[in-house]
Amino acid sequence: MAGVDDVVATYWAAADTRDWSRFGELLAEEVVYELPQSRERVRGRDAYLRFNAEGFPGEWRVAVERIVAAGRGAVSLVRVTEPSGELLAISFFELDEAGRIARITDFWPEPYEPPAGRAHLTERI
Amino acid sequence: MAGVDDVVATYWAAADTRDWSRFGELLAEEVVYELPQSRERVRGRDAYLRFNAEGFPGEWRVAVERIVAAGRGAVSLVRVTEPSGELLAISFFELDEAGRIARITDFWPEPYEPPAGRAHLTERI
Repeated sequence: MAGVDDVVATYWAAADTRDWSRFGELLAEEVVYELPQSRERVRGRDAYLRFNAEGFPGEWRVAVERIVAAGRGAVSLVRVTEPSGELLAISFFELDEAGRIARITDFWPEPYEPPAGRAHLTERI
Repeated sequence: MAGVDDVVATYWAAADTRDWSRFGELLAEEVVYELPQSRERVRGRDAYLRFNAEGFPGEWRVAVERIVAAGRGAVSLVRVTEPSGELLAISFFELDEAGRIARITDFWPEPYEPPAGRAHLTERI
């Protein structure tokens, strides 16, 4: 059985190349995908494949920045590059006993301006 | 030496109780804290203690939802409760050889409305 970090790396490689067949093989049939920011949930492999294949047209690429994996859990930080710019995504994964992805929780943090009053304590990246 | 998951749990417990002395003991002297969303960086234990002690007044509490830890790295998902509402934060940690926190990268994802055109593929949480 592949390690959870390998499963997550393959998940993102398959997404990057739109290899939905390979992507789907990584998923448990009852996979649950959640987006806490928009309070959306997708249930099941078929619905989640459609969500990905239909929901995100365009010329995006995705590159893994970091994976932290332990036991049957993992977190990835990825950089998504679109013609209009870049964004980061953080995803929490839980694998089932067969090593398939049973749960994904995604976060898409947006850029914001630094709050007032703390410029003396920070530098800009 | 405490495990990285214990260090991260103690970090949030100390933040929750404003125990900046205990909080500071967890930090490497040269700790680097980054907020990619606002492109802010704080360098060094003293500056980071001031950033926390001065920068976040109010009656917030913080509760750990999840910690994934491996080697000298960890990621936490925490729920911050304020009188005005709740928010989630995701933090990537890297420990140095002495087990002190050398690098923290924080994300504060904000709520957003579901994009149009995918309601048939999702349910609401």
